[in-house]
Amino acid sequence: MSVLIILGSKTDIEVAAKACDTLEEFGVQYELRVCSAHRTPRALVKLIEGSNAEVFIAVAGMAAALPGVVAAETTCPVIGVPVHSNAFSGLDALLSIAQMPPGVPVATVAVGGGANAALLAAQVLGVKYPDVRAALTEYRLEQAHKVEEAHRAAGLSRLI
Amino acid sequence: MSVLIILGSKTDIEVAAKACDTLEEFGVQYELRVCSAHRTPRALVKLIEGSNAEVFIAVAGMAAALPGVVAAETTCPVIGVPVHSNAFSGLDALLSIAQMPPGVPVATVAVGGGANAALLAAQVLGVKYPDVRAALTEYRLEQAHKVEEAHRAAGLSRLI
Amino acid sequence: MSVLIILGSKTDIEVAAKACDTLEEFGVQYELRVCSAHRTPRALVKLIEGSNAEVFIAVAGMAAALPGVVAAETTCPVIGVPVHSNAFSGLDALLSIAQMPPGVPVATVAVGGGANAALLAAQVLGVKYPDVRAALTEYRLEQAHKVEEAHRAAGLSRLI
Amino acid sequence: MSVLIILGSKTDIEVAAKACDTLEEFGVQYELRVCSAHRTPRALVKLIEGSNAEVFIAVAGMAAALPGVVAAETTCPVIGVPVHSNAFSGLDALLSIAQMPPGVPVATVAVGGGANAALLAAQVLGVKYPDVRAALTEYRLEQAHKVEEAHRAAGLSRLI
Amino acid sequence: MSVLIILGSKTDIEVAAKACDTLEEFGVQYELRVCSAHRTPRALVKLIEGSNAEVFIAVAGMAAALPGVVAAETTCPVIGVPVHSNAFSGLDALLSIAQMPPGVPVATVAVGGGANAALLAAQVLGVKYPDVRAALTEYRLEQAHKVEEAHRAAGLSRLI
Amino acid sequence: MSVLIILGSKTDIEVAAKACDTLEEFGVQYELRVCSAHRTPRALVKLIEGSNAEVFIAVAGMAAALPGVVAAETTCPVIGVPVHSNAFSGLDALLSIAQMPPGVPVATVAVGGGANAALLAAQVLGVKYPDVRAALTEYRLEQAHKVEEAHRAAGLSRLI
Amino acid sequence: MSVLIILGSKTDIEVAAKACDTLEEFGVQYELRVCSAHRTPRALVKLIEGSNAEVFIAVAGMAAALPGVVAAETTCPVIGVPVHSNAFSGLDALLSIAQMPPGVPVATVAVGGGANAALLAAQVLGVKYPDVRAALTEYRLEQAHKVEEAHRAAGLSRLI
Amino acid sequence: MSVLIILGSKTDIEVAAKACDTLEEFGVQYELRVCSAHRTPRALVKLIEGSNAEVFIAVAGMAAALPGVVAAETTCPVIGVPVHSNAFSGLDALLSIAQMPPGVPVATVAVGGGANAALLAAQVLGVKYPDVRAALTEYRLEQAHKVEEAHRAAGLSRLI
Repeated sequence: MSVLIILGSKTDIEVAAKACDTLEEFGVQYELRVCSAHRTPRALVKLIEGSNAEVFIAVAGMAAALPGVVAAETTCPVIGVPVHSNAFSGLDALLSIAQMPPGVPVATVAVGGGANAALLAAQVLGVKYPDVRAALTEYRLEQAHKVEEAHRAAGLSRLI
Repeated sequence: MSVLIILGSKTDIEVAAKACDTLEEFGVQYELRVCSAHRTPRALVKLIEGSNAEVFIAVAGMAAALPGVVAAETTCPVIGVPVHSNAFSGLDALLSIAQMPPGVPVATVAVGGGANAALLAAQVLGVKYPDVRAALTEYRLEQAHKVEEAHRAAGLSRLI
Repeated sequence: MSVLIILGSKTDIEVAAKACDTLEEFGVQYELRVCSAHRTPRALVKLIEGSNAEVFIAVAGMAAALPGVVAAETTCPVIGVPVHSNAFSGLDALLSIAQMPPGVPVATVAVGGGANAALLAAQVLGVKYPDVRAALTEYRLEQAHKVEEAHRAAGLSRLI
Repeated sequence: MSVLIILGSKTDIEVAAKACDTLEEFGVQYELRVCSAHRTPRALVKLIEGSNAEVFIAVAGMAAALPGVVAAETTCPVIGVPVHSNAFSGLDALLSIAQMPPGVPVATVAVGGGANAALLAAQVLGVKYPDVRAALTEYRLEQAHKVEEAHRAAGLSRLI
Repeated sequence: MSVLIILGSKTDIEVAAKACDTLEEFGVQYELRVCSAHRTPRALVKLIEGSNAEVFIAVAGMAAALPGVVAAETTCPVIGVPVHSNAFSGLDALLSIAQMPPGVPVATVAVGGGANAALLAAQVLGVKYPDVRAALTEYRLEQAHKVEEAHRAAGLSRLI
Repeated sequence: MSVLIILGSKTDIEVAAKACDTLEEFGVQYELRVCSAHRTPRALVKLIEGSNAEVFIAVAGMAAALPGVVAAETTCPVIGVPVHSNAFSGLDALLSIAQMPPGVPVATVAVGGGANAALLAAQVLGVKYPDVRAALTEYRLEQAHKVEEAHRAAGLSRLI
Repeated sequence: MSVLIILGSKTDIEVAAKACDTLEEFGVQYELRVCSAHRTPRALVKLIEGSNAEVFIAVAGMAAALPGVVAAETTCPVIGVPVHSNAFSGLDALLSIAQMPPGVPVATVAVGGGANAALLAAQVLGVKYPDVRAALTEYRLEQAHKVEEAHRAAGLSRLI
Repeated sequence: MSVLIILGSKTDIEVAAKACDTLEEFGVQYELRVCSAHRTPRALVKLIEGSNAEVFIAVAGMAAALPGVVAAETTCPVIGVPVHSNAFSGLDALLSIAQMPPGVPVATVAVGGGANAALLAAQVLGVKYPDVRAALTEYRLEQAHKVEEAHRAAGLSRLI
């Protein structure tokens, strides 16, 4: 059970790190690689062919062809994470990743959504692996708990 | 092995029909339901609780809260399909579905991407079910074949 | 006479605080709660069912499903406040809140418009409660007075 | 108990008609007027001053100053309905109406959302008038019923 | 020969100051006033009625109704300057000002374009007053001169 | 007293025709020319140099450089009319025309706003020519009259 | 001297046909192929490796990865043509093609700009081949001639 | 073999500097000039007429007419670089440059893409000059090498 996280550029490491941290929380094995659809296309094909990952996460900004190119090379689910850019704040990457043509889908998450990409990967693996699914159920409860605590915290629930 | 397709409104049936057709191609069982996050919220919760689907597809336009609300009620993967609307051509639905907050991801596909949503559902199930994965591999080959035929077709490859 | 202000996330407290301050100016009772449409959907339903508020204010960013989900659970007026986000500066939340489907309206105000949400809530209550309406009339006069003072202030009305 | 619906231009009558139909369903009295913030500003001020409406609905496209100008002349709630235009499909009107400055809110609904504007007006009146509130509760039940019927309708719930 | 500059809010003073500085360069008399279409609508009408300005400049952000409301009260040319806002960086104001309905034009300049608004006002006055026109011709020559100097400056014209 | 209307392409004639009709209403002389900033740049320079127009109207779509290039060649006021295009519905032309750099303003009107461009030209000429100004005052009264008639027309002012 | 035109999908043939027609006008040899970056990635690599084209034109809509993927496989100039799509009218493809990361440029033309892509290809070849350059000079003169004729055509140059 | 880089304003020097640096890497001669389509139109025409450059790079923000105006004066390839602006982050310049009308193409690169503009210029020259092409092949290999090194760097390839 494993996930391969591919970054188009090392500048996207912050977004990818959130995915790593989340996968670790769920005990999901992952590998993190920098490989570019535009600058190292052959290495990318080899990386995917040689991988036994069951889910892919591709992190990319601007033209953001990476997730789609990964999806073209595998029939495993590919999750695409658009990265914030200077000129278009991630709209460019969001459209490039979400607007895939019929036949080759990419599961797109929010701009900068590294953590959610990892959660989605865990949900996909949870279909097959009961312990991942159990960890997800646990996570949801903790999450709800945190929201409730936020409410109880002083200063927030002013009532007149 | 099954998929639950939920439409927020019966006007979205055309987009959902493409998902149905594609799932049938892959021999994946599915159920199709109309249920609204805004007009029948309690029925929606019951529908999800009572479902044994392994993947959900939620089709919605405009504010498009449906995919996110479904994702809030399950730890299975939820695929969201934004639908084209008069005023914003689907940008409203795309942002509403893709920009989920940390903790509750939705796998977003292209505006009107019913067929790709079904393919993505098949890819998720393919992680667990070898025959679905085999069907996906087969599908890719046929798809490549079609593109090649398009090229060979008369009128297209004019050469001077 | 009371207003229930719900935040999807504690990070939106600054926007909500402007609503609180404004409601206090008008002597309108309110309660402030953190409750998420995606992370604590059941608690949200209970919160609304158990509330005797006459107007709701829901503050949310990104996919911003909260105002619509609140509106689905009550026939009281629901005011939605879109919050600024990194990638889309609030456009995502604005569209998610304003573009509600027929049957379940949300009264949308400007991105970050916490104060205006409270004013709108006061205007709604002013339809029923004469003293709130009187306070609104008073407020308008003061507001006009402030604009006039801004004009009289030194440095501004340079004339050649 | 009454609503004043103001159109900036007679070309917006289709959107306003949906508001009229919905208000009639709830037994809410209304008056429908064409009056422009830009072409008949004095008549507009007189219209509002002379009105005893408890809620205003202002329908406008393009620069769409009408709702804000109405809001400047009353402390009653003003609901703004952006209208679809050729060049910006309603984005221009949506931003012009939603992005009101602090101090003068307008309750914005979806582009072309005439029916929802009327529903929101009814919700506002429902705070004061129990029979309008009862009619709203009834309406919600019927609405849920319709969604359920849509589901049961032949052709939609294909199941394999 | 004079220009009346109206600001919707004193926060827009920086943009207006650029207009003032430029008008001073051309020896055009102006008056600077803070007056809001939404918060002081009656004072605004009086201000315009009482003014003998030949051109108006209206500076406004967000819903930016000010330029259009000024244009509704005069048949003199009105120049609108959209101001940058947090959520939409001025797109909201630009559309609100440029997308005026047929019959009541506003001469729109760039977001934050206070200096260009003043230049345009000078060009309008230059149609009538030969000395303003002469000053504009002079200004153009100086401007071209500055661009040429920028080119000659060290460090810029590297040549290999 | 005259206006020179320049079209970048003959496909924009419909928008320009509205300007012509409106100028005729005000008895303003005009000349209509097709001349492109990109395809006939030298002819454009000659056209402007040889013109004794007091105001220019430039109609252009897509990259819409025409109004700015005209403005670069004259110190008379230049009014730019963005034209609707297939891909961006006029947003491309609006931004190209409105976002002029400091020093060379263009008075931008709404997308497709040929009539308003002519009205603005008349307002500019009205600063100098009392009879044009008188015609504008007359026009305003008629316009208000039409709005009032629209209101009185049967079918519109339904009242329950 | 030759150009290879690649279409991501046969549905883009209309845009490509304009490129073919224009290249024929300039006597530039070309080959037209349908090959998808997502559906036939290996065939695409082979196509480029086996081509002796000096310039590439890649036509693609939606996620539009094709031009960038072609650019990754060659050091020849690659011209990208964004195609109009239902949901985003070509904005998605324009951003996907223009926003290439540093190191792998694509020369982007207007949405649907098949003819301009061919002209740009001819301009690139014109740097090397004097007869293509001569044909371009000829073309410019004809183009200017057409604009002038448009002006002379009856009905257009109304003058009062 | 040479490139002429033209800046519309000296404030765009940072973007142009990246082009200079990249051209130097490839041993391509260039000249850097500040010349404005709007402020110094005659000097611009002279600059282009007097130049023997084989490729032009034009850097401009906001209305960004410069690249198109340069393209109108030459049949050599013109590469346009949109520059980031305060209000629209470069969307205004991108549309102004990419959306050129039929007949006069500009090769548009990403917002702020000075380096890619230079690379594209080198690719164009590489069609004619074998040594530039060889340098480009070399550059690609180095680029791939850097991506691979980024991957090997400590901290990045965490593996569990």
